[in-house]
Amino acid sequence: MTKWVYSFGGGSADGSADLRNLLGGKGANLAEMASLGLPVPPGLTITTEVCTYYYDNGESYPDALKGQVEEALTKIEEEVGARFGDVSAPLLVSVRSGARVSMPGMMDTVLNLGLNDKTVEGLATQSDDPRFAWDSYRRFIQMYSDVVLGMDHYVFEDVLEMLKEEKGYFTDTDLEVEDLQAIVADYKAKVQDALGTPFPQDPQDQLWGAISAVFGSWQIERAKVYRRLNDIPEEWGTAVNVQAMVFGNMGDTSATGVAFTRNPSNGDNRIYGEYLVNAQGEDVVAGIRTPQYLTEEARVEAEAVEPSMETVMPDMFGQLKAVFAKLEAHYRDMQDIEFTVQKGKLWLLQTRSGKRTAKAAMKIAVDMANEGLISKDEAIGRVDPAALDQMLHPMLDPAAERDIITTGLPASPGAASGKIVFDSDAAEDMALKGENVILVRVETSPEDIHGMHAAKGILTSRGGMTSHAAVVARGMGRPCVSGAGSLQIDAKTETLRCGPVELSAGDIVTIDGTTGDVIKGDVPTIQPELAGDFAILMEWADQVRRMTVRTNAETPTDAKTARDFGAEGIGLCRTEHMFFEADRILAVREMILAEDTAGRESALEKLLPIQRQDFEDIFDVMAGLPVTVRLLDPPLHEFLPREASEFEELASSLGVTTDVVQRRVHELHEFNPMLGHRGCRLAITFPEIYAMQAQAIFEAALAVKTRTGEAPIPEVMIPLVATEKEIATLRKLVDDTAESVFEKAGDKLDYLVGTMIELPRAALLAGDIAKEAEFFSFGTNDLTQTALGISRDDASRFLTTYVEHGIYPRDPFVSIDVDGVGELVRFGAERGKRARNDLKLGICGEHGGDPASISFCESVGLDYVSCSPFRVPIARLAAAQAALKATS
Amino acid sequence: MTKWVYSFGGGSADGSADLRNLLGGKGANLAEMASLGLPVPPGLTITTEVCTYYYDNGESYPDALKGQVEEALTKIEEEVGARFGDVSAPLLVSVRSGARVSMPGMMDTVLNLGLNDKTVEGLATQSDDPRFAWDSYRRFIQMYSDVVLGMDHYVFEDVLEMLKEEKGYFTDTDLEVEDLQAIVADYKAKVQDALGTPFPQDPQDQLWGAISAVFGSWQIERAKVYRRLNDIPEEWGTAVNVQAMVFGNMGDTSATGVAFTRNPSNGDNRIYGEYLVNAQGEDVVAGIRTPQYLTEEARVEAEAVEPSMETVMPDMFGQLKAVFAKLEAHYRDMQDIEFTVQKGKLWLLQTRSGKRTAKAAMKIAVDMANEGLISKDEAIGRVDPAALDQMLHPMLDPAAERDIITTGLPASPGAASGKIVFDSDAAEDMALKGENVILVRVETSPEDIHGMHAAKGILTSRGGMTSHAAVVARGMGRPCVSGAGSLQIDAKTETLRCGPVELSAGDIVTIDGTTGDVIKGDVPTIQPELAGDFAILMEWADQVRRMTVRTNAETPTDAKTARDFGAEGIGLCRTEHMFFEADRILAVREMILAEDTAGRESALEKLLPIQRQDFEDIFDVMAGLPVTVRLLDPPLHEFLPREASEFEELASSLGVTTDVVQRRVHELHEFNPMLGHRGCRLAITFPEIYAMQAQAIFEAALAVKTRTGEAPIPEVMIPLVATEKEIATLRKLVDDTAESVFEKAGDKLDYLVGTMIELPRAALLAGDIAKEAEFFSFGTNDLTQTALGISRDDASRFLTTYVEHGIYPRDPFVSIDVDGVGELVRFGAERGKRARNDLKLGICGEHGGDPASISFCESVGLDYVSCSPFRVPIARLAAAQAALKATS
Repeated sequence: MTKWVYSFGGGSADGSADLRNLLGGKGANLAEMASLGLPVPPGLTITTEVCTYYYDNGESYPDALKGQVEEALTKIEEEVGARFGDVSAPLLVSVRSGARVSMPGMMDTVLNLGLNDKTVEGLATQSDDPRFAWDSYRRFIQMYSDVVLGMDHYVFEDVLEMLKEEKGYFTDTDLEVEDLQAIVADYKAKVQDALGTPFPQDPQDQLWGAISAVFGSWQIERAKVYRRLNDIPEEWGTAVNVQAMVFGNMGDTSATGVAFTRNPSNGDNRIYGEYLVNAQGEDVVAGIRTPQYLTEEARVEAEAVEPSMETVMPDMFGQLKAVFAKLEAHYRDMQDIEFTVQKGKLWLLQTRSGKRTAKAAMKIAVDMANEGLISKDEAIGRVDPAALDQMLHPMLDPAAERDIITTGLPASPGAASGKIVFDSDAAEDMALKGENVILVRVETSPEDIHGMHAAKGILTSRGGMTSHAAVVARGMGRPCVSGAGSLQIDAKTETLRCGPVELSAGDIVTIDGTTGDVIKGDVPTIQPELAGDFAILMEWADQVRRMTVRTNAETPTDAKTARDFGAEGIGLCRTEHMFFEADRILAVREMILAEDTAGRESALEKLLPIQRQDFEDIFDVMAGLPVTVRLLDPPLHEFLPREASEFEELASSLGVTTDVVQRRVHELHEFNPMLGHRGCRLAITFPEIYAMQAQAIFEAALAVKTRTGEAPIPEVMIPLVATEKEIATLRKLVDDTAESVFEKAGDKLDYLVGTMIELPRAALLAGDIAKEAEFFSFGTNDLTQTALGISRDDASRFLTTYVEHGIYPRDPFVSIDVDGVGELVRFGAERGKRARNDLKLGICGEHGGDPASISFCESVGLDYVSCSPFRVPIARLAAAQAALKATS
Repeated sequence: MTKWVYSFGGGSADGSADLRNLLGGKGANLAEMASLGLPVPPGLTITTEVCTYYYDNGESYPDALKGQVEEALTKIEEEVGARFGDVSAPLLVSVRSGARVSMPGMMDTVLNLGLNDKTVEGLATQSDDPRFAWDSYRRFIQMYSDVVLGMDHYVFEDVLEMLKEEKGYFTDTDLEVEDLQAIVADYKAKVQDALGTPFPQDPQDQLWGAISAVFGSWQIERAKVYRRLNDIPEEWGTAVNVQAMVFGNMGDTSATGVAFTRNPSNGDNRIYGEYLVNAQGEDVVAGIRTPQYLTEEARVEAEAVEPSMETVMPDMFGQLKAVFAKLEAHYRDMQDIEFTVQKGKLWLLQTRSGKRTAKAAMKIAVDMANEGLISKDEAIGRVDPAALDQMLHPMLDPAAERDIITTGLPASPGAASGKIVFDSDAAEDMALKGENVILVRVETSPEDIHGMHAAKGILTSRGGMTSHAAVVARGMGRPCVSGAGSLQIDAKTETLRCGPVELSAGDIVTIDGTTGDVIKGDVPTIQPELAGDFAILMEWADQVRRMTVRTNAETPTDAKTARDFGAEGIGLCRTEHMFFEADRILAVREMILAEDTAGRESALEKLLPIQRQDFEDIFDVMAGLPVTVRLLDPPLHEFLPREASEFEELASSLGVTTDVVQRRVHELHEFNPMLGHRGCRLAITFPEIYAMQAQAIFEAALAVKTRTGEAPIPEVMIPLVATEKEIATLRKLVDDTAESVFEKAGDKLDYLVGTMIELPRAALLAGDIAKEAEFFSFGTNDLTQTALGISRDDASRFLTTYVEHGIYPRDPFVSIDVDGVGELVRFGAERGKRARNDLKLGICGEHGGDPASISFCESVGLDYVSCSPFRVPIARLAAAQAALKATS
């Protein structure tokens, strides 16, 4: 027969911490603590499998459940020496949810269950405190009616408030026993009125009502939202814990508290916690009374007046300290503990691994490894790479005041202040004058790249987490708040309105890309601290990881930042961004408007020295390291003006008629530019473009070699290849160019020619393509767009709904779709390797900086990941974790 | 040692017809005829492998070649009793190319090789005809200098013409021996002048020059173009045939001719051919003298005066007739034969399977099967399905005159005449009045669907074979000429200009979608004849094919046409075309502009009865058969007007402000609509749309069932699915709708719910998706777009170059890319079947009507193909051929 119910308490337990999936986190840890001989009020756990059964069977229970619960309840009764419903020694229990992972405040809890008109008297006698007994009964009716019976809680609050007003009481503690009895009577009448039936008096009815309510709360809206936000699968379900009540509010020898075995904020190895004498757990949380410190040291540091537990209850504190040490040693992690002291006896109500800041996680991991509690490998696993993000960018001083205008999406982390500018040219002009600017746009387009680069931060009123602004800003490491929908941006009048606030160009604004806050005025920032524990942990991570970590960078500044963060080369240097800058866009447009090869070549000749300088600057930073340069990728129309008004200007700059410009813009227009005349297709039709770029790359690399004595290793990447013939044709072009540059220079260097695998066909035909390619870089952005048929630029209209409905567990542009896109990457890697044993494999999509995706990359044997500069440390840590997982 | 040279002649041969790939078609058949004991002038064939070697090795030959050629040449000499370069009995040879498949006129030939200043005298003596000898020498020098030495042929024509003028001669036959000798001298002087070296006198030099010229001609431009147009791979190469000369111009007992064993135009089982007494082969072709009929019957029928060969050379004719019978029986196919009679002896110079019209192919196949010469299965294989296209559409009467204005691309076969209209609304209005119209547009868009449907034909000045106009027209079976670039279309002034011709709206124009001709005025058409041999062959095909054939149709007319052509159901009924029609577009737009679900539902309620009627009309035609209805697929913005000028009109029709329209149009704009908010994504966000469509489908199907007693089998198709959850969600919606319709009607019917597999992810995750889908229809148009990353609307900019460079062997939108897209289809089929054994599999992309793609569909085990109505017979035949191929 299936075991649906697990008992714990009295020094033993049916379950253990290993059964977290079955018993939930709380139930598993209660069982574990009981087995360790720690003082845990006895109880029972109804497994998560019952939850699954409940929802699979029209909200009904397995037949055997009732008997198993009764049996376990009897054990509790024996342990406590009280009986459920017994008038003289009534057993009272709490009923709590407990999922696999903590979902604080999301689901329902009922305390003091077992009280009724008769047992309340027994409790009064037993505790020798009628006021306590009646107050408990009042609280129970209120809680039960809210949670189980579905009544509005304000009904009960009204009763309480009215009585207090009538009596002229100021606080709840002024209530007398008689008052509480009157309130209980009134509460019960309200229940009868609202539901047409009396408040349940039978403790068994109460119990099953509460159990069903807890299971039911798995599917309430806020729980669903929480699960979605925290990637918790619906099928996990919750367990239900029924546990004997203990009371911290039975006088001055009673207390309740919460504690962390170390400081969860900075990681210090000191007990951190609060307690209250004569109180229940909710009082600590509710903030009605100010909790007091546990340790004297903390009290002194905080200059608090109220005495510490260490002073007030030295014996209890001593016991507690021993328990903390035991639990931390047992769980080998910092614990978050709830406890109650009932009349001088310590009870533990919960223990779990404590949540902590990234900074604390780092310190705790390093400390514990140094203490010998965990291994270095374990320490690496203890820090969530994604959480590093908050440490890597300048952040607003938490102490500073924030005059928040509105909050948008936290699209790219970090914070920045600067003068508002409404267009990219202005942003560039002002930045050149040394001003800090924030670029404010309804949305951004590739034409804004130079402005985004010049700005300290980007703010848009439209577009999601994967909008152009968001993606490019993350790539550049610029803070960005996107989709701040309540902003009204009028670029013409250069004003920004949000409710009553109106700002103009030149006014100072601050954005916090980590929270999405848009703040009026300047806010001081603090710089990240990357030494100490951070540096130690990164060093440990570097020792275990197999994959190297490169960066996506196309400016010397970005390249430098990335190297400082530990990047081991460039995995993606996009060359089109270089084409957009002001000093060259005219030559680019001249090339596009040229009528023939000769015309194009003459324009390209003007671009050659500029491109060469671009590459030299980057190669200088990366001397000795591999630099993957992607040859021109976007369709040519992206470089042309869009507005008819600009045609004339361009025409006169180039000495052609407006008609010519207009015709060419029209000719080049594409319905689906993502699937258009771009990537290597440009070079199949206009080989001279790639020839110029290849020449610039090799000449620049040789120049750096000559100057520094250390050559970069250019990896020339042909984008958007789908067939062997494309890469064969263009590889030959690059090789021929290299040969002619080397011959002219009388010098040469190592280089590779390879391709991006960013089309499903390329992944499938990887075996053919690898015959001609020396490396593959998986361009998982485009591979996601094509494999899933979703345009990143347009996806916001439905992708949110899709993630909400669980159609994709996460935004597939943020975390790789392992089942679909992942299979293509796997095909590409396997088939490519089979054809060319030493094929170098990497990834350069946005996914290269996402820990889950990095773990996937390890599993398919990629050689490196490449990500934006600010994500390099994240990738280093994630790669280390992935390597550990792979070998474990 | 590799055998590079194969000998034939004298009743035996090294090779045979089986070695076509090695010896080329001509060489293989000469060998075969020699082995059969037929009179073939002895010769040798240099294999196609030498051609490959030649191009792989910098245009050089394998070492062993020279020796092998010499050896084979010796055999020829022995057989003929003459020696190469011998002054008294010189051997003369022809040097001809011969690829695996015939490339008529594409490559070079040299005749009379072996003549020089000395051997010409020997030939004169030997033939007792000095004039013949010198004329042969003159011709040889001219041909050799042109073909091998690269001189312009007009140089020699000038010499000849000037002498004739000087002498007052009228024809070449007036030339005396002395004249010819003078000409030869002059020719040789011209060669010396132009090249600085004398005309080669050594027959060995002549021979190797000619061999190299033939191999060289494999890579001349016209040969490349021919190969591209005829899908002949470059790597096949050509063989070279060196063969003893025979002469049809040695007096009245000599003759030359060409013959087909049956009539290649209509397939009649009667010898069909021409000959000339005392002539060389080129005279028959050149048309200087009018050739005479072979048979007396043909002469009488044609009322020709010149006597037939049957009469003039009854003995030779008798031998020839026996040869024809022998060859047809041997090759079991109609033969195209070249022969020469030299002084009363018959020589065969070539035999090959003769080219024929589709009509003739059909008749010959059926006749031969009935004669017992071939099996029915072979007969099925003898007709090229693609060639049927020309038989299935009305065609211009070949006898009628054509006043051709220009020629565009033959985008959709068939011919049509009608009044010119320049916009789709006008087309519809005039069509409603019963007028035949031709819709003339620069290019078409989805908004033109109603106009294209109303028109008899479509003419565009822009766009390729896969442009919107072309694809939609083929789907509708409307003739279309696209990309007629020399047309200047001015829709504003409603004029069409092409050079001096100017036409206005209402003028009559005729288009021939089979040739691309655009013709001024009306041209009479003739209807296709689908009975007789066509019907018999189709019946045979239907008996052997495994796959069923359905049609893509969304109107009753198309559905009816398709059924007449043998369609066994509908494989794709697109519902969006229904939305564009004038009586409903307003309700569609109202739905799109609605602010909430209620607003959308109210608009959808207006559409429901209209959609129901649409489906009823189609189901009526398809009662008892499966009809796959694809629920709404395109992004909603496709239904909105594009021009600002139209916004106001729409706003006032719907009683909203122009702002609202403008905002919505802006909101819905997409950068890549192909990858946008479309397909099932529409219904995940707006389920009410699919609910309305499902209701309309089931209600219509029940109505037809009630009326006709025979229910159609609706197969409700959810487009653009990429995940199991999408299909699960929408399948439930359809099932729920069906249940409620059935309940209300008190009646029910069988139906299926399935999906299109048109995204790479869907193909890969087919195992999951099949859990929820009862059928898959491979949407290979979109699958090609996504797998290859090519937008069909934009591809024309580079796809032509791509096909020219052999990057894709054929336009992947016309013939499926077996390696890439094909692998995805294979995955989809295999994984889907594994998950659901009775999963129904079909294809509904344009590829469903392409024979090569149909063959692929057979190989992956699809259950049916679906294609446009006019391609149904093609698909039936191709499916039969594929089935035969699969079992052979």
